[in-house]
Formats: sequence, structure tokens, C-alpha cells
Amino acid sequence: MNEPVSLPSNWVSARTPTAQPGQLIMLVTAGGKRHLIQLQPGRRFHSHLGLLEHDDLIGLPLGTTVHSQIGHPLLLLEPSLADLMTRVRRSTQIIYPKDAAYLVHKLSLRSGSHIIEAGTGSGALTIALAWAVAPAGMVYTYETRADNFTTASENLRRAGLLPYVKMHQESISDGFHQTGADAVFLDVRTPWSFLAQVRTALRPGGFFASLVPTTNQVSELLLGLESTGFADIEVEEVLVRRYKPVPDRLRPDDSMVGHTGFLISARPVVDAADPGRWLSEERKRYEARKEVQAMIAEEEERRTIERAEGGRKYPKMPLPG
Amino acid sequence: MNEPVSLPSNWVSARTPTAQPGQLIMLVTAGGKRHLIQLQPGRRFHSHLGLLEHDDLIGLPLGTTVHSQIGHPLLLLEPSLADLMTRVRRSTQIIYPKDAAYLVHKLSLRSGSHIIEAGTGSGALTIALAWAVAPAGMVYTYETRADNFTTASENLRRAGLLPYVKMHQESISDGFHQTGADAVFLDVRTPWSFLAQVRTALRPGGFFASLVPTTNQVSELLLGLESTGFADIEVEEVLVRRYKPVPDRLRPDDSMVGHTGFLISARPVVDAADPGRWLSEERKRYEARKEVQAMIAEEEERRTIERAEGGRKYPKMPLPG
Amino acid sequence: MNEPVSLPSNWVSARTPTAQPGQLIMLVTAGGKRHLIQLQPGRRFHSHLGLLEHDDLIGLPLGTTVHSQIGHPLLLLEPSLADLMTRVRRSTQIIYPKDAAYLVHKLSLRSGSHIIEAGTGSGALTIALAWAVAPAGMVYTYETRADNFTTASENLRRAGLLPYVKMHQESISDGFHQTGADAVFLDVRTPWSFLAQVRTALRPGGFFASLVPTTNQVSELLLGLESTGFADIEVEEVLVRRYKPVPDRLRPDDSMVGHTGFLISARPVVDAADPGRWLSEERKRYEARKEVQAMIAEEEERRTIERAEGGRKYPKMPLPG
Amino acid sequence: MNEPVSLPSNWVSARTPTAQPGQLIMLVTAGGKRHLIQLQPGRRFHSHLGLLEHDDLIGLPLGTTVHSQIGHPLLLLEPSLADLMTRVRRSTQIIYPKDAAYLVHKLSLRSGSHIIEAGTGSGALTIALAWAVAPAGMVYTYETRADNFTTASENLRRAGLLPYVKMHQESISDGFHQTGADAVFLDVRTPWSFLAQVRTALRPGGFFASLVPTTNQVSELLLGLESTGFADIEVEEVLVRRYKPVPDRLRPDDSMVGHTGFLISARPVVDAADPGRWLSEERKRYEARKEVQAMIAEEEERRTIERAEGGRKYPKMPLPG
Repeated sequence: MNEPVSLPSNWVSARTPTAQPGQLIMLVTAGGKRHLIQLQPGRRFHSHLGLLEHDDLIGLPLGTTVHSQIGHPLLLLEPSLADLMTRVRRSTQIIYPKDAAYLVHKLSLRSGSHIIEAGTGSGALTIALAWAVAPAGMVYTYETRADNFTTASENLRRAGLLPYVKMHQESISDGFHQTGADAVFLDVRTPWSFLAQVRTALRPGGFFASLVPTTNQVSELLLGLESTGFADIEVEEVLVRRYKPVPDRLRPDDSMVGHTGFLISARPVVDAADPGRWLSEERKRYEARKEVQAMIAEEEERRTIERAEGGRKYPKMPLPG
Repeated sequence: MNEPVSLPSNWVSARTPTAQPGQLIMLVTAGGKRHLIQLQPGRRFHSHLGLLEHDDLIGLPLGTTVHSQIGHPLLLLEPSLADLMTRVRRSTQIIYPKDAAYLVHKLSLRSGSHIIEAGTGSGALTIALAWAVAPAGMVYTYETRADNFTTASENLRRAGLLPYVKMHQESISDGFHQTGADAVFLDVRTPWSFLAQVRTALRPGGFFASLVPTTNQVSELLLGLESTGFADIEVEEVLVRRYKPVPDRLRPDDSMVGHTGFLISARPVVDAADPGRWLSEERKRYEARKEVQAMIAEEEERRTIERAEGGRKYPKMPLPG
Repeated sequence: MNEPVSLPSNWVSARTPTAQPGQLIMLVTAGGKRHLIQLQPGRRFHSHLGLLEHDDLIGLPLGTTVHSQIGHPLLLLEPSLADLMTRVRRSTQIIYPKDAAYLVHKLSLRSGSHIIEAGTGSGALTIALAWAVAPAGMVYTYETRADNFTTASENLRRAGLLPYVKMHQESISDGFHQTGADAVFLDVRTPWSFLAQVRTALRPGGFFASLVPTTNQVSELLLGLESTGFADIEVEEVLVRRYKPVPDRLRPDDSMVGHTGFLISARPVVDAADPGRWLSEERKRYEARKEVQAMIAEEEERRTIERAEGGRKYPKMPLPG
Repeated sequence: MNEPVSLPSNWVSARTPTAQPGQLIMLVTAGGKRHLIQLQPGRRFHSHLGLLEHDDLIGLPLGTTVHSQIGHPLLLLEPSLADLMTRVRRSTQIIYPKDAAYLVHKLSLRSGSHIIEAGTGSGALTIALAWAVAPAGMVYTYETRADNFTTASENLRRAGLLPYVKMHQESISDGFHQTGADAVFLDVRTPWSFLAQVRTALRPGGFFASLVPTTNQVSELLLGLESTGFADIEVEEVLVRRYKPVPDRLRPDDSMVGHTGFLISARPVVDAADPGRWLSEERKRYEARKEVQAMIAEEEERRTIERAEGGRKYPKMPLPG
């Protein structure tokens, strides 16, 4: 999977100081509303704040204040990665920037990485993954639902990232078409069902992660990882707290996103013969405690039976606890 | 700053399935201790768990369990980006992976980006920045203290990322040597003192961010940004909650990192003539409320004086408020 | 302020197993909507789910399912303290149960405590305070705005707690009518303006607390407390995270209350001669660091001047930092 | 259980402005160390900061600065409820003030309430419960382990709250000795095993709560509550974030308590015939979704079999998802 990819000529030069035809740009209103549009000569931008000719925007420096034909100001900005991710057309719940940012980091993605993703959903995370691995790497993404597949491919095309994504409209039950992947990310309901497939697709030293919304799924996935030869297992949650940016009245926002998902990450081990060896310390301590408790329960039961049978009565003594 | 950079031949092929001479690898103990070492033929790894010959590790698949000469198992892993960041030699407090991941995202960094950083500190964030912009981009980093400068350059060299970093041992008071940068990040005590320099260095459409530990600094930086021609100002905090990865006893860790810093981000606007226009909605509402309150206070004072003077007594009526 | 108060005959017996005339009860719909009503013979409860005669509810055991005349089920419950607090008529933002609970605890309130509160607002916190100190104690509450005063007194009357509250419709600028109070709580915009008044009203050993929404207010109040003879100063924030109570799909709520206020608490000291003595460790460390930094800055300036004057050039040496 | 209790003569007068013989007081060092001691004529307080005669403290106003015989200052304070809870002798993990405060609130405890607690543990929560219900109410607490029982009774005696607590050294498997309780709180490993006993002990309209550390226990308890006739079920977590109280360098503490337990609360319903009726909305939505998914899975299986049998091939069509 690791042949070098030549740098596309437009990759770096896309960042120009002025708005170019074909470029995605943001128009931000004074009220903070954000509009993501692709500049095309001859087109018009319509909103309740009035009209703007694309031709009047092309060539302007980014960061310029423009005005609609009825005088409303709008700020012309280059879209951030978060804008690209969150202003997609959606047919599903999308993964949030806070989680995408941490995932890209946990999976150690960089230009040149080859990552497998399932499922694609609306493609918001695919955008962040392609952004991270382009131009020398590739995202291989799987999605079964036709409507999501279409939505995601359109979202990726619009963001200019489709060249760095290979899309598969099929189930992952029978495995992935790729092997030697640097990373695999599962955003599916039952990630524990596909861990054998993940192991086959991942190169030695690769990175695995998944995002699930419920604690029950976390428990099931942990059980699966422990028994399929994964180590370095971590469960984390990312919370972002936003503040009102008022210098002399600084305070957190009244409400915040309370939960999106739990992020589970792990590394494959070559020799899965003794999977217990690389369990976390907490896990091992808990197993040891469970054994002691089972011994105590057995002893208690034995005493109860002896007492019931009128046999030798044990004095009430503290059991280890 | 945007000439294309040719892809170094070793960039992608660095990810091999087996441990190579010169490669950085992790040895993880059964107790979870992590050792980051660079493999060199003829060398030995020493720890309280016994010895390991580097030659015995070279050529092994990543993910293999190896044993010290006294029988202790260790897991051979490829380091993650977080390992590279956090296992540096330190002469300062380092920026945490949770913040580095979100910063890379907020600054919309990707391969090919040119980013300025000040100060370098121990270089942990510099590693994350170089990782994100290599091989086609560049980090320009500034540090005044000689000891930090040396520590950081050694940490970057060891991580193999020095080719993607240009280090300056000098103050940023007189400005940066670069212009047209895609992004600028300030990790200094008084970031508000350098905003004019930041504006000069940033290209139109670029991204600015800073990380400060106290709310007082946030307030000062917000005031500075408002008066220097920045818009789209955001203040955020990233919290990561870790869980004990035990399937049938899942629970968050007993203690967590409570605070590292507040992340402030903003975008430069071309026309700084009317900076108030792009203030946040909260900011504008607050300004409006302050004006009303000032009017009320004035009115109240007027009435008080009139009453004191025995003049026309106003009936007690509810003031807006 | 500490004469014993005899136990009112209705205090304990208010908790009966069946719904009584005059009692406040909750009707909870199958959809989770909560209605707080006072039972009165001959009255009717109207909602979009149909009618219910109060007479049909009186005498029923609490916890019974009743049906409206068109067949919708409703659950008859005794209101919780949180229901009493949050189902008040409001003319202001109310203090949340999470904060009220922690405040009652921090102020060490119990039956028999005498607590002063300003301002009353809509009386939600007053309800929680009266609940905590009744029947042997008393709340003394101050409010300047007539509309709030009326709303709060009606809310307290309805909750049956008015006998344990003495309401003052006046400003606290000239001080409180009480002395020897066990606790004082300030919910006003500029609590630092009234600390002398608080000290006069508090008995030795008493408890002070305040709740403010912004970090700027926290800083101002801390400065005030330090200079007015308070010790044991703490700043805290209470966050409550709610979960969807679904056994096989357990997960936190999608959104949560992100911020209400910062809780500052402190204790008065008798001898305010050397207020610095009882500052927190962090505060003292910070003061010490500031002094060192001032010395360094002075030294740096001296060297700069010497160099500028062409005088003795100091070698570049690391300053402590 | 609801006969009125006459107010003990010492209840209110315990709060005196000066330190009294027999009183519990706090000595706080300049470094913030807290010592909880009971004043006894003729006794001495020893610490590494020197000696203090109790006789020299008796009669001093609370809030006074005293000095050890070698000159170290100590602040004489009345202990807060949190001091009483957390400075107990411990043979177990104790419940934190943040959770105790919220529990007292959720259980709507007040002077006169009768509450059952199991197990007692070291008695820290028992102190907070007794504080809330005294002097007119009572705590009934159960503990099987003899060492905990002794520790807790000593801790309660020292805090002066033993008159308001009835302690039982026995298991709750066979039920509680009380009926008609206003509230029941379970702090045991398997609270779901005792819900029938809880229902028997609780009066109609009463309050139930439990605190468990793991998500698996939350799920089990939710299942138990749903099938035993409880409604109004809530799962919550309380987090307290502390700040360094430095006015011009305000910031949260570097580390915080990340987790203690999940708080589950519920109300008993009289008619447990149709327990599903009072499930939460999320629970009902989830059940409905599960049914639809089962139908889809069945339909998919049918089509697969038909295809395998070479029968009528269904066109690939999107299933509802």
C-alpha cells in the first residue's frame, strides 16, 4: 500500500491570498451565520441579507469585508477544516470536529498514511482523514447505504478531497480489500463483529480506533479487543467547553455538547497466544479481585451449609473483603 | 512561502512492518511503562526488568512480544505521535496531546502548510506541528532561552522531524522573519504584545491561535484581538476523560487532568477600520447592555440629586433592567 | 439571633402517605411533563391531556396512577425539593438545584441556622435555604425590585416555607438588619461592594458564599475578600452530567448545562491586621514569583541600558525564569 | 415513623461565637493543613508546628489567629460540615461532599425526615444525613462489617450526631426493621438485589437513591428499578471543578477528581402492574427502535434465504434504517 504518491500541482498553491474561481470560500454575516460556497464566474449568492455576484468576490483578498446589494456586510474567509467538516450535506449524524481532531492524532495520521474507514456516513470524518493523509496517502472508506454513499462522495468532491479517497459501497463483513493499512477506524454499530477483519487489514505496528455512543458498546468492544489480540487499549472521551469571547465578562457558554461518543483505541499484537499479558493494570487488578471474591463466596456457602446441617459451627469471623 | 517541496524518499517508507536500525520504537512493559528508544546495532537496552540487545529487536515485526535476558516480557511497538510528543526531554511544561490535536485542527494544518510558532519550549508541540505539515510544509519556531533551544532541537532531531522545522533563537519583539504564513501560534506569557507582528506574518485567510493558562490572560488577549483587526474569535477548552478499560467494571479514571490552558483562535481581517463589526454576538449584546445600564445609572443619579435638592419628586417607577 | 424556635405542629406530619387537601403535589405525564398543583376541594386540573377533579386525587396514596377524563394516565407524586425550586413563577434567572445543593452544604446549613440572602430574585434559592434551616432557623432575604419581591413571596407562600423567611424589600448598601448570622449568601452583581456589611452581620465562625457568572467578577471578589479579612477562600464550579436511563444503551445526554456560575466561599477572621497570612498557598507562591520576575525585569532593563550606552557588555547568561 | 421529636436543648446553642470546652474546632495552618480537634481542658495539641494548650483556645472568638509555643500561627475555625465528613477515621472509601450534598438534595431531606442507609461504611455520608434530618428526624443505618460499624459509630459520636442515628450491625438481605421511611439510600455493591426490601421500607411518596462506581452497575440497577415498580428514574454524575483563588492569575486546578460514582434516583409507584408506562422517553424510543430493527433483520434473513434457494430475487432496495 505504500508506493509514493506524487504531489498534485494544485495541492499547495490552493492557499492563495485572494479568492479564486472554483475555490470554496466562507461568507460570514455580522450575526455569525456561516455560508460555504464555491466561487463560479457568473453565479450569484442569495440570502435574506441580499445578493452578491461571485464575480465581485473573485480576486478579493481573503479577510475582506464585502457588502450585499442592499448594504449588509459579509466577511470573506477561507474555510477552516472544521467548516469543511460541519457544512456538509447530511444524511446521518456526523462526527464532531473535537472527536475528528483527537482521532487523527490517536491514529498518528500524517501525509502518506493509508487509513481504512467504515462506515462513511455523510463523509464528515472522511474529510478530516483525507485532509490529514493527503496528498501522499489515501483513505479507503466503506459504506453499505446507497444514499449515504452518494451524499459522502458529493461532500468529498466539493471539498476537493475526492482524489485522496477510495470509496467502496459494500459491507465489511467479508473483510476489506486492503492489507498493510497504517490505521483502521470503525464507526459502526457493532465494531466487535469485525475485529478479525481489522487484524487482517492492519499492518504490524498499525493503529485501530472506534467511536461508539453507549457504555454497553464500550464493554462489548473491550471484550472483543482483549480476545482478538489487541494491546495498549484506551477508552477516552473528548469534551470541548466554549467561552463567550467577551473580555470583561468572560464566562463559559450556558450550554455545551454533553456527549458524542467514547473513543476506543488499540494496537494489534503479533502473538495473540497469551492475550491476557497486555491487559491494562486495572483489568488485571480487577481479575485478581474477582478470584478472591469467588473464593470468599465459596467459603461462605460452605459455612452456611455446615451450619444448616447442624455440623461444626464456625465462629462469626471477618472474611477478607 | 508556498513553493512546492519535493517528497523526501524516506518519508513514506519509514513505516515498515519490522523494526529497522535507526528507527524509534517503544518497549512497553507488562506494567504499562513505556520506553522510547532508537535502535542501533551493537547497543543494549537496560532497565530494572533486565537487558535487551538492540540486535535482537532489529528485524522483528512490530507488535511482537520480546523477553529480557531475565525473562520479563516487553511489547515492541511503533511509537504513536503522542508517544513522540510526551517522551521528550523537558526543560519546560509541555503542551498536552489533547491540546496539540485540537490546535492542529483549529489551525487547519496539513501537509504543505507553513506555520510559525513562538516559543518553542521543549518542542513537544513543534513535533505535532511538524508531523502535520511535513513533508511539503515547514514549521518556523522561535525561542529565546538557550537551554530550551538546545533541548527542543535535540527532541526534534530524535523524532526525525528536524528537516521540517526552521529554528530561530531570538525574540519575536521585532517581528518574524517570515511573511505569508498559513498560521501563527503563540505560546508566550503576553501574546497580546505581539499581535501586530502576527498580522504582518500571516497571509490573508490565515489562522491564528494561542494557548494561555489563566482567565486574566484570556481577557487581555481578547481585548488585543478586538483592537488589532481579528474576527471569528473563539475561546475553547479541551478536556479528555479517560476510562479504566475493564469490560465488566467500566468507569472513568479516579482523577483527571483538570486544566492545561484556554485555546483562543481568530482570523485576520483585511480592513481593520471598523473592528467592532465582527465582534461576537455575545460581545455586541454585552456592549448594548452596558450602554443601557450607563443610561439608567445616569438617570438614577439625576433623580437622587433632584430629591436631595427638594425638587420635583419622581414617583418610584421600575427602571428597565 | 439564636433563641430556640418551637417545632410547628404541621412540620413533620406534612409528609403523609396520601394526598391531602391543601397539599402541593406533582402530576407527571407519560411523556415526562411535570405539573405542580395545590389540591383544593372542588377545583379541577386542566391540561391538553384532559381534566382531573382535585376531589378524585385527595385521599389517594402518593405514587398512584390516575387517569384524566379522556383516559390519559398521570402519576401522582410528592414534589421533590428540586420540583419546588424549579417550578416557581420566575421574574429572573433562578439558581439551579445543583448549585443550591452545594451552597447549602458549603454554608453548613441545618435546622436552626440563621442565614442572610441578597438578592431574593424569584426565591428559588430562598426555598432551598428555608427547607434546610426550618423549622428552628430562619432565612433573612433582601430584594430591591418590587416585582421580584412579590414573585418570591408568592413562591415561598405556595411552597409552605414563608414562616421560615423574613423578607426585606430594601437595598443592602446600608447594611443588614441582622447581626450574629450563621451564614451570608450574596447573589448580586458586585458582591465585593458589600463585604464590610457582610462582616458586620456574620457571627464569628460564620460562613460566607457568593455565586457570580463571570471570571472577572471572581477576580474582583477575591481581591475584596483578601483585603476585608476573610480566609479559607475557595472558588468552585459544580457540573452535573445527566445520563439517558436506558439499561442496554446507557449514555450521557447529548447536551448539558455548560455553566451557571462560580461559587466563591470564605470564612471571616477576627484579626484582619495581617490579611496576607491566610491567603492560599497558590496565591502566596504567585506573589513570590511576581517579585522575582520584577527583579529579573529590572536587571534586564539595566543591562539593556548599559549595552546601549556602550558600557560594560554582560555576557548573554540565562536569567532565572 | 413520624412522631414529632422534641428539640434538644443543646441543638441550636452549639453555635457559639467563642470556642467552648467539648466543642469540635479546626486549626488551620498557614500552609493550609487542617486539624480537627475536640477541646478539652488540660489537653494539648501537638504538631510539627509546635504545642498549643486547649485551655488557651477555650473562650477565644472563632476566627482568631493563635500561635504555637514556637511562634507558628494557626487559624481557629468552626468546622464546616465538609470538615466533619472528610476528617473522619476511615476503614473504607468515603462518599465525597459533592455527592453527599447532591444526595441530601435529591432525597429532599430536611429536619424531621426519616432515612435508611446501607451500608454505613466509615460513616461520612451518615454524618451528612444526620446533619440534614436532625434534630427532629432520624437516620437508620446498616452495616455488616464489625470494623466499619465501630469506626462509624466513633466518627458519629465525635461529630455529636450519634443521637440522630440508629445503627444496625446486620445484613439487609432479610429487609429493614423500619417501614414508612421518607427515603432509602443504598451504598452497596449490588443495590438491585435489595429493591423489594426498599419498596417495603419506603412510605408512598418516598425517595430512593443509590451511588455506584461502574456503568455496568448502573445498567443492572436500571433494569431492577424498571421491573420493581419505580418511576422518575434519573442517572446523574456530579463534578466539582476547583480554581486557584488568585485574583490576577485565576485558573482551574491542574488536576481534579475525575470520578467517584453515578447517582441513580427513583420514586416508588403504588401500582406496579404496568411498569413500562413510566419509563423515560429515551427508554421508550429505544424499545420502539429495537422492534423495528428486529423486523428489518427478519426481513433481510427471509430475502437471503429466498435468494439462496434460487427463488424470486428481490431487487436491492434500501431498507428503513
